[in-house]
This record gives sequence, structure tokens and C-alpha cells, in this order.
Amino acid sequence: MTTPVRVALLGAGTVGAAVARRLVERADLYAARVGSPLELVGVAVRDTSRVRDGVDPALLVQDAEALVDQADVVVEVMGGLDRARELIERGIRNGAQVVTANKQLLAHHGPALEALAAEAGVGLDYEAAVMAAIPVVAVVRDSLAGDVVTSISGIVNGSTNFVLDLVARKGVPFEEAVRLAGELGFLEADPTEDLEGLDAAAKIVLLARAAWGAPLTLADVQRRGITGLTDEDFRTASANGKVIKLVASAWTSGAQDAPRVELAVRPVALPQDDPLAQAREGSNVLIVEAESAGTLRLHGAGAGGDETASAVLGDLVRAARRVTRA
Amino acid sequence: MTTPVRVALLGAGTVGAAVARRLVERADLYAARVGSPLELVGVAVRDTSRVRDGVDPALLVQDAEALVDQADVVVEVMGGLDRARELIERGIRNGAQVVTANKQLLAHHGPALEALAAEAGVGLDYEAAVMAAIPVVAVVRDSLAGDVVTSISGIVNGSTNFVLDLVARKGVPFEEAVRLAGELGFLEADPTEDLEGLDAAAKIVLLARAAWGAPLTLADVQRRGITGLTDEDFRTASANGKVIKLVASAWTSGAQDAPRVELAVRPVALPQDDPLAQAREGSNVLIVEAESAGTLRLHGAGAGGDETASAVLGDLVRAARRVTRA
Repeated sequence: MTTPVRVALLGAGTVGAAVARRLVERADLYAARVGSPLELVGVAVRDTSRVRDGVDPALLVQDAEALVDQADVVVEVMGGLDRARELIERGIRNGAQVVTANKQLLAHHGPALEALAAEAGVGLDYEAAVMAAIPVVAVVRDSLAGDVVTSISGIVNGSTNFVLDLVARKGVPFEEAVRLAGELGFLEADPTEDLEGLDAAAKIVLLARAAWGAPLTLADVQRRGITGLTDEDFRTASANGKVIKLVASAWTSGAQDAPRVELAVRPVALPQDDPLAQAREGSNVLIVEAESAGTLRLHGAGAGGDETASAVLGDLVRAARRVTRA
Repeated sequence: MTTPVRVALLGAGTVGAAVARRLVERADLYAARVGSPLELVGVAVRDTSRVRDGVDPALLVQDAEALVDQADVVVEVMGGLDRARELIERGIRNGAQVVTANKQLLAHHGPALEALAAEAGVGLDYEAAVMAAIPVVAVVRDSLAGDVVTSISGIVNGSTNFVLDLVARKGVPFEEAVRLAGELGFLEADPTEDLEGLDAAAKIVLLARAAWGAPLTLADVQRRGITGLTDEDFRTASANGKVIKLVASAWTSGAQDAPRVELAVRPVALPQDDPLAQAREGSNVLIVEAESAGTLRLHGAGAGGDETASAVLGDLVRAARRVTRA
């Protein structure tokens, strides 16, 4: 009961700082749920002199390799591709459990990392990489493990939904809505990843892999973002009683024992009463259809530091339980 | 890879027959997902001479004890209290994993059965006992394991929702709506469990235990069913732009480190645009609030043979994986 589970946190941005704060605030709760205390052994950052809200400065370190080498569980919330991959691979080879929120890393290198984790006999969990705390990976992979998923579709990018909702419900011209979303912090300095549907494409690839175990990549996604839309498109949709949404979808075709998975991200004009048309502002919705379960719908905030930290911490508690029971 | 996992099925009603059929139809799929084939060794029923759609008559047995004694996983979908409890306890003592859809059994004896399972080191899974394939137990217990749930509320009984929706949207008088729901198979021959809120009370007790680990019982639920409602109540609600729904809810009060859990099932007049007011016909909705995740909403069919079988089979696949990895 008393040996702590050593946690290495890679990254102290919005999500990382929220994770670090909650590990302090909820220390007793996590110790009770895991059966051992969770000890945050360090937080790897590039600049250890910068103050991060609620994070003990004594925990900040630059030597991420040395930190990973001390850990039972590595929590990667730094983002980026090459460096994050190196550190996660190092953790796996050390026999550590890994939790990551890094959607683009998984979209590019998920199957290789999962193979490495399986070989090492450790877990690689990534609920936080898709739609923050909405437990969509758990639903398609675990809850429906006894069922056959036939399709997945959703509003999985809150930034573009915020823009499209401003146009549809407030009548703001499209270009101005994009500018406003940027000013309000809903878009990154470089908004390409959201507006061109790259963020949504990464998410649907991860969900389809989790649902069908198929070796899909970003290149398999028929992708069209919202930058080609014009005010005329929105007027036509509205005149026909429809709402334009950026919809990510995955569905199977072909024989049931060897299904082909199709993936798409594209703007769709939906009837006003379609469940996907109901997504307001930055919220996300996912609809999963399965043979026996029928239609399941999940709704919530698909982004945000605290919301993403909720999913990271859920994966962390389960990873820590595996450590204590090993 | 080749030693089969032996499954004993207790009960061949609507849910049991659906489970048995899927075990045949999806044999290859489950073998791939588990790593070993699932072998249905028998189906315990009272009357082995009755034909059950899609269930091999050669599998039907009356000696449930002998069947349980052969099993790696016991799947209980027979319902009732004493007999189901005896057989589940026997399975646990044998070291078998247990999956059950028996909500009333768990409401009455869940903590005792969970203690017994923990002592024996086996799993006791019951996703199917609450809202069929909507993965609500998994969400409050597992996905939010790193978060603090603050409230749960929902439309968790499809039968009463069907009645209330008929009155609210079709203007059918209340008494007639109850009669129609009975004729359409939405209510049992004895509809007391649905109409008096006993079914909803059992579900909210199970969810609250899963969320907070608190030793709650049916006696802790402030319960009022829908039988006391009058057409006047519906007219008043409608005149105020409201919709009457039977709402089950659980919330915490008091100190955060020692929260008190409150439970209620009662008819509530909700604004038309409330997410719970949107539940149509027999559908179910659950809203979970957590400190970090914010508001999560899950929607789907909360009943039905196939839908409940989806949850049973999901629990079964995970239980079988534990058997193969032991």
C-alpha cells in the first residue's frame, strides 16, 4: 500500500499544468483509488525558469530522459512528433506504462508505438487525444468489444464548430467569424490544422483504428476543410432549412468478415433537427452505430485544459493500478 | 491461443437468447478479440423442452449448479433474487468471472457480492444492468476515475418515458397512455416496478455506488413514481412551456473529502429545451457532471434484448480476456 507509483510528466502547457495541479489537490483521492500514492517525480519542460500556475517550480526539469528513466508511468502532454516519440519509446522500453494526449503523434505513429507497447507488455492509453473527456475511445474499443461497430460520425473539432455556429445562428459573415474565433482563442495562431480538417482527420483515424483495429492512416481520409466555403453556401443552406457542419465520419463497406473502412472529413449541410446540427459553439458530439447496441450519442466539451486533464488523469489512475498489481 | 474460455449462460429469455445467438454468429470475431474461442458450454433454463429462437436445444440444461461448476465465466441473465444470487456466489467461489444484467439483485446485494468477488480475485461486471448498451457504469467508474463526479441525472426508464412522451407530444390522456404502453409491450404485466420508479431507483443506486463507492441502498432514494400524476398536472406543465419527465438523480453535498450522496427519483416539469426533455419515446439520456470534465451527456436505447446483449457481450469479452491472461 505504501510504495508510491512514480509519475513523470512531459510538458507543462495548459493540459500539463492542470494535470500537475490535480495530482496535488486530489492526492488522497488518487491514493485511495489506486491503492498507492501517485508521486509526481518531475515535470519536463524546455524552460525551467518560467513560472507555471500551480506547478511546484522544484519539480521542473530539462533532462527529460533522466526523468523518464525514473518513472513507472510516463504522461506525455508536450505535443509534437519526434521528441515526444523518442521519449515515449524510451519509457516503453524501460517497462513504464504510457499515457498520452498527443493526437498527431498517434495518427502518424500509433500502430508502431502500440506494437512496441504490446511487445514490452505495457499499456499505451490515449483517451485524452480524442475529444478530451468525452470517453469515445473507451466506448468504441472497450464498451463495444462484444458488438460490431458499423459507423462513427461526429462534430469532433470545436474550433470550426464555433466558427460555423457563429455564421449559422448569429448571421456573422464567414470571414469575420474566422477572425472572431481567432480573437477569442478558439483558433491557434496558425489555424490551418483546424480549418483544413487535419485535426478532425487525426481524430477519426484514431477512432476508426480503435473500433476496427484496421491499419488506417491520415492518407486514407477523404478530407475537405471549411476554408473553401463562401457566404453563398451558408445562404443556400439556410434557405433550405439546413445547417453546415464539419462532419468527421467512418463507416464500413464490403463483406462483414473483411470490411473495408472508409474515412471522411467534410462540410455537410444537415437538417436542423439532425443530432449533429445541435452542437453549439465549441461543443462536440459523436454518434456511434453498432449492430446490437443501435445508436449511441455522446456529447460534451471536446477541448480545454481541465477537460483534457480529466481524460489524462483517468488513464493515469488505470495505468497506476496496473503498476501496483504487477 | 487454442484453449477455449468456457461460458455458462444462466437464462434464455430475450437477453439470454440474443447473447447465445451472437456467440454463434460472432464466434470468429470473439476468438480474435479474446485470443481464445468462447465456448458456450450450456444454457440453464427451467423448461428445457421449450424452443428458444436461435439457441441450440442441445445446450439447454436444468442443472444450473453443474453448469456453473464447468465455467470460466458465468453470465447471469435469468433475473430474480435468491436463485440468481446463489448461482453467482457459487461461480465466484469457484473462481469464475461473473457478468450479470440483474439490476434488482445488485441493488439489494451488490456490495456483498462485490466484496465476495474481490476476496476471490474475480471480476463482477454489470454494465447491462443499467441502461443496456449506453456505457454509463464504465463512464462514471472507469473513464472518470481521475475526476470527481459531482452529479448524475437522467431519464433512465424507457417505459415511463414512453408514457410521458405520449401524453406530452401526442396529447393522449394519461390513463390511456399507460394502457397503450402496456399493449405495445413497453410495460410489464405488472407495471409497478416501472410506474412507481422502482426500476429507476435501482439504476440510480448502482450508478451512485459506481461513481462514489458509497454504501447506498434503495432505502436512500427519495422516490415518487408517475402514478400520482393527473391530466391537470400535464395541462399545467404544458401551459407553462414545460414537459413532465421521470428524472433519476444523484448529487453530493457536504465536505468534499466526506461527501454525502443524495438520491432521488421523481417527476419533474422541465423546460422544453432542457436536454432531459429531449428524450423521445423509449430512449434514455444520462447527464454526468464532473469537476474537470464538465458536462457529459450520453443518449441511446436503454432497454431491449439486443441492446442489453451488447453490454453483456462487452463485459463477457473483457472477462474472457482476464481468463486467458491469468
